[in-house]
Amino acid sequence: MLLYLSTWSEIEQYLKRSRTIVIPIGSNEQHGPTGLLGTDWMCPEIICRAAEQQGDILVAPTFNIGMAQHHLGFAGTISLRPTTFIAAIVDWTRSLARHGFEKILFLNGHGGNVASVEAAFSEIYAESSFAGRRAGFAMKLTNWWDLEGVNELAKEMFPTGHGAHATPSEIAVTQYAYAHAIKHADYSPRIAPSGPIREALDFRARFPDGRMGSDPNQATPEKGRALVELAARSLVKELAAFGDEAVPG
Amino acid sequence: MLLYLSTWSEIEQYLKRSRTIVIPIGSNEQHGPTGLLGTDWMCPEIICRAAEQQGDILVAPTFNIGMAQHHLGFAGTISLRPTTFIAAIVDWTRSLARHGFEKILFLNGHGGNVASVEAAFSEIYAESSFAGRRAGFAMKLTNWWDLEGVNELAKEMFPTGHGAHATPSEIAVTQYAYAHAIKHADYSPRIAPSGPIREALDFRARFPDGRMGSDPNQATPEKGRALVELAARSLVKELAAFGDEAVPG
Amino acid sequence: MLLYLSTWSEIEQYLKRSRTIVIPIGSNEQHGPTGLLGTDWMCPEIICRAAEQQGDILVAPTFNIGMAQHHLGFAGTISLRPTTFIAAIVDWTRSLARHGFEKILFLNGHGGNVASVEAAFSEIYAESSFAGRRAGFAMKLTNWWDLEGVNELAKEMFPTGHGAHATPSEIAVTQYAYAHAIKHADYSPRIAPSGPIREALDFRARFPDGRMGSDPNQATPEKGRALVELAARSLVKELAAFGDEAVPG
Amino acid sequence: MLLYLSTWSEIEQYLKRSRTIVIPIGSNEQHGPTGLLGTDWMCPEIICRAAEQQGDILVAPTFNIGMAQHHLGFAGTISLRPTTFIAAIVDWTRSLARHGFEKILFLNGHGGNVASVEAAFSEIYAESSFAGRRAGFAMKLTNWWDLEGVNELAKEMFPTGHGAHATPSEIAVTQYAYAHAIKHADYSPRIAPSGPIREALDFRARFPDGRMGSDPNQATPEKGRALVELAARSLVKELAAFGDEAVPG
Amino acid sequence: MLLYLSTWSEIEQYLKRSRTIVIPIGSNEQHGPTGLLGTDWMCPEIICRAAEQQGDILVAPTFNIGMAQHHLGFAGTISLRPTTFIAAIVDWTRSLARHGFEKILFLNGHGGNVASVEAAFSEIYAESSFAGRRAGFAMKLTNWWDLEGVNELAKEMFPTGHGAHATPSEIAVTQYAYAHAIKHADYSPRIAPSGPIREALDFRARFPDGRMGSDPNQATPEKGRALVELAARSLVKELAAFGDEAVPG
Amino acid sequence: MLLYLSTWSEIEQYLKRSRTIVIPIGSNEQHGPTGLLGTDWMCPEIICRAAEQQGDILVAPTFNIGMAQHHLGFAGTISLRPTTFIAAIVDWTRSLARHGFEKILFLNGHGGNVASVEAAFSEIYAESSFAGRRAGFAMKLTNWWDLEGVNELAKEMFPTGHGAHATPSEIAVTQYAYAHAIKHADYSPRIAPSGPIREALDFRARFPDGRMGSDPNQATPEKGRALVELAARSLVKELAAFGDEAVPG
Repeated sequence: MLLYLSTWSEIEQYLKRSRTIVIPIGSNEQHGPTGLLGTDWMCPEIICRAAEQQGDILVAPTFNIGMAQHHLGFAGTISLRPTTFIAAIVDWTRSLARHGFEKILFLNGHGGNVASVEAAFSEIYAESSFAGRRAGFAMKLTNWWDLEGVNELAKEMFPTGHGAHATPSEIAVTQYAYAHAIKHADYSPRIAPSGPIREALDFRARFPDGRMGSDPNQATPEKGRALVELAARSLVKELAAFGDEAVPG
Repeated sequence: MLLYLSTWSEIEQYLKRSRTIVIPIGSNEQHGPTGLLGTDWMCPEIICRAAEQQGDILVAPTFNIGMAQHHLGFAGTISLRPTTFIAAIVDWTRSLARHGFEKILFLNGHGGNVASVEAAFSEIYAESSFAGRRAGFAMKLTNWWDLEGVNELAKEMFPTGHGAHATPSEIAVTQYAYAHAIKHADYSPRIAPSGPIREALDFRARFPDGRMGSDPNQATPEKGRALVELAARSLVKELAAFGDEAVPG
Repeated sequence: MLLYLSTWSEIEQYLKRSRTIVIPIGSNEQHGPTGLLGTDWMCPEIICRAAEQQGDILVAPTFNIGMAQHHLGFAGTISLRPTTFIAAIVDWTRSLARHGFEKILFLNGHGGNVASVEAAFSEIYAESSFAGRRAGFAMKLTNWWDLEGVNELAKEMFPTGHGAHATPSEIAVTQYAYAHAIKHADYSPRIAPSGPIREALDFRARFPDGRMGSDPNQATPEKGRALVELAARSLVKELAAFGDEAVPG
Repeated sequence: MLLYLSTWSEIEQYLKRSRTIVIPIGSNEQHGPTGLLGTDWMCPEIICRAAEQQGDILVAPTFNIGMAQHHLGFAGTISLRPTTFIAAIVDWTRSLARHGFEKILFLNGHGGNVASVEAAFSEIYAESSFAGRRAGFAMKLTNWWDLEGVNELAKEMFPTGHGAHATPSEIAVTQYAYAHAIKHADYSPRIAPSGPIREALDFRARFPDGRMGSDPNQATPEKGRALVELAARSLVKELAAFGDEAVPG
Repeated sequence: MLLYLSTWSEIEQYLKRSRTIVIPIGSNEQHGPTGLLGTDWMCPEIICRAAEQQGDILVAPTFNIGMAQHHLGFAGTISLRPTTFIAAIVDWTRSLARHGFEKILFLNGHGGNVASVEAAFSEIYAESSFAGRRAGFAMKLTNWWDLEGVNELAKEMFPTGHGAHATPSEIAVTQYAYAHAIKHADYSPRIAPSGPIREALDFRARFPDGRMGSDPNQATPEKGRALVELAARSLVKELAAFGDEAVPG
Repeated sequence: MLLYLSTWSEIEQYLKRSRTIVIPIGSNEQHGPTGLLGTDWMCPEIICRAAEQQGDILVAPTFNIGMAQHHLGFAGTISLRPTTFIAAIVDWTRSLARHGFEKILFLNGHGGNVASVEAAFSEIYAESSFAGRRAGFAMKLTNWWDLEGVNELAKEMFPTGHGAHATPSEIAVTQYAYAHAIKHADYSPRIAPSGPIREALDFRARFPDGRMGSDPNQATPEKGRALVELAARSLVKELAAFGDEAVPG
């Protein structure tokens, strides 16, 4: 069930049978010579939409702009500052908690978001903790590649050159879903360098074409399909387990 | 050209021929018994995608959560506080300006966003104004119904019961684009009441089914198509005019 | 009744008979070759003081610095950023609501304030909306020129060259109240140009003497008196209607 | 010279002969059974206006709402939070510095403002200090009762029962300037108690009629006139000295 | 009792017999040619640790970075902005109040902190004041040199050249506690100049070696011991009195 | 070299031979029945002080209050909100960068800090990234247990019951350094439970005595000494490597 294609009374009905929701969250940032700028928010969105075909889950709109300051040296990247990001997560969460959602899962597509998402969770919980009251809801962050079985499949498909940014697995996922937008380029070197992440100009000096440690040339739509199908099944299971999780007295 | 389906080097190329970009911006909020929660961000997104088929324009990802505090009494609504909203617009704009965009048009689908968007513009310009320097870029807010000819067409189609929220014109646009998600309900009264907008519980007391002044039953996918086609043509023209606008000395 | 010339116990008495208060709000900014820097806050203050002679209304101190970033290219302008402006409105309102005021009217003298005032209202209401409780008070923004009959009178007095900034009507109001501070200058061109509002240096390039679309030479103290008298009468009526407005269950 | 009764070009002229400006700053808060709510902002405003008759000084609009959280238990008090207060002082100062003012004096009428004003000065200076550059302007806070000779005169006039809030000297100043708004009440006890300042309900429990340590009954308009005349002369001198103060290399 | 060397259950026990806690607070900033960068936070820490040997008091961890923007022109200084400082004090206080502490004393070692600490107190109290409820706890700021008898002793020891920064009394305190870190230098002039405090580069131009009005050469470890012993005794008394202070109805 | 026991000119000298500094950072929070509240900030401080005996490194004052909202259900815990934490890290870093430090290592003692520290780094880098300039300095976060060899040694010492909070290794470190503050208690169960981290009341319900997955009874001062000695050696190496790391063009 896609929240944005539903009416408010349909959501009211859904809340009678479930208090769980999943939010695809990512980033809009350069993904090397052939990766799409939307890769990181499209991957969790694609997986959520596939999962929604299989189970009675509710998918929120996509949180599509993340913390991507290090990619600002490449055209098309859009980034929030961490403090803006935190404020936005606070508001999304307060809105959903207001309606009675008790288990809020963020399915994440961008490693650079992790710290800011977790900081946001702490910011939200802190209000209850300072006040000495229960929050009444729980949040969880899951990277799509950490869904059950997905990392294993990716390693099997891409034993070398998976890397950390513009990976063949994420590019495969977008190739599967947006076949008309598959791009081609020569990669040199075949596997991109690795290194620390700092400000945008430092990043561009270290990673001239935007990739980090990856060889995206290994991506195919078929591999993308396999990844999405597995991830979607695992997501349905993860949401069920999260929804069933008991909260201690 | 859709930014999120492009690579960074394609955007770099685009910037050599144009410095203009359009951002669909809306809200995710209740739209009465039959309106979709995503109506306000989907309408400008639909129009931008139609326009992108007709002209060499660049469409950013959709800013899909807006200022909808007054709708929080209805399940599924997600709202930013105005100050969060402003911070996010500041970051989107600074990101785009960083890449060299000089004309940034927000195509808006939610009346409740207008004040916060304009406040955000002032917040951004103020930095330059306090520092005594030129901004180097210009922002513009256009509601999709204010695109050339659109209001006139909507009035012609819906001479009564257009209203201010969950209007037949916005519902028609989503019916055209998301035909599989058309919902039906009885409306009582046929035309919803009008009144001031305050906090969420006040809103729900005044507008029990969520509509304001509208009779959405008049919407059809065909009317939606006509609105989208006209709006898309007008958007291409508006972007061209905005892009050509000279900046004084 | 002027709040600042009252004691706390007089306000406590007032609250037993009325829960309504009006706050003059404006800006301190350039107003062309002859307009006073205080024009935009003095106009609503003048009108409130005139109204206070006619009815049992309560006038708060004047909120005299507004959102005027675009005028910072002209000496004497003082501006708040929108986020500062919002924080201040939040605090004024929380203070007044704390005392039991339930209808808080901002009588505004500066178009550039509108977005920030409305964003502030939403910021305030949002706290109640997220918490799922009633606010307990209502805010309203009225521009003094939108008081009943005032725009009509201004159009009659100044059929051409009224413009949007440093208008003959606002200058007439200050001429009436501050006759000793009437200034004279040659205007060239007689009617100032129009255009968009952006950062301060852009503004000064477009509007070299500070006026927008206006011919302030038409202002006279007599016209100012007529405007003030009408506006004051309308304000008393508007406050009564706002005070009487029922809040839904 | 009153800034708000001047045009921008008059301020531009003034800046050619002086870079100094004074801002009356106070608070709008309860002042006991007979003190006016506006006392704390009206006192510095009255003194500035008297000074402006005597010397070529420039008086900004009055910063009329201060940090008065402890008085919120009494009707009519309006308070900013310290962080809002700081943000506002930052904006006022950046605006004035933008025009070339180099010596900005805040003439203060409220003891409760002192910490927040000084914190604001540090907030402003910190930007330059972190950046390793000169600020280009200096700020100074002077309480009106600390102007040369004023405390001495007040002690002479009111050897006992001067107190710390709703003092006979500040009430005398407003009686002189607003003779039509003189209020009368019985005070019991004659001299109000003293004690620490905490939150509003604690304050009201300690100081039931709002006074702290004072016997305002000693105030007369004549004493107010003497205080204003002395303070105005001292202010002109203080502004001259501040303006002449050299800034080290 | 040192909080950081205690377990949570020991603190729980302590709260059964006392609701009072003291927080050493200072700054890390240059202290002239021989003063240690940690002087301002080490002094209150030293005194608290001495006091803790004498009475059943509870000492929190040291708040060691303060508002020292004006010292940033000298290597090793670390400063918070006032608004960061306020946010941190808010969080410390909310944490302690959450556990039931009702009397929270900040023993301060840096004059430059005073405004920001008091602004923070007001920020905290304001939440209760706007909400119309009691805070439930009280905060107090005491500079260590204002503890009973300490200023008098310092004046007796250092009748001239005590000054305002890098004073012989604070340097003596650190010499007593950190005898292995005593530094030597020639001072020229013997007594440093005085003047206003502005941004860091202005400060360094006025006070080339970092001292303000002081002759630190007079410090000895023995004088430090006498100051610490007196201050510790006075602190124990002050905490007892603060703890015993009744809160009005 | 300990910064706080140095003078500003000693730091100036240090900067001529090195641009690297280490900041011990932790948290003040409950650590189970026997762990000290200061454990998480004392551990990195202890290791830094040991390292400082071995190499020419510079140790900043300890950042002693971290992000510990989940521990607020236990007396003595003090926590910053993530946004306060970020603001503080920004200010510390801007201060140090101002003096010329180019490599800033945070040696961390609290897992709950990681997200907020990394978010703070991104907040700092983002300013440079938006502005399109180099930062001029690099930050790095290292948990003390991740220093070379330390995790391995801890696993060897504590093959079971190491856990995630109130671990025997961190308690051993404090036992070694603060032998007089060793506490004893019975643990039941011997190994504490594991689970997710949410708000404080949820935490206390899941982890009744405060431990997470650990058996702290295995700690001894001797094991602590071995951990500290190894960690100190590894820290000196890590600082050298970080200092030598070249920054790309």
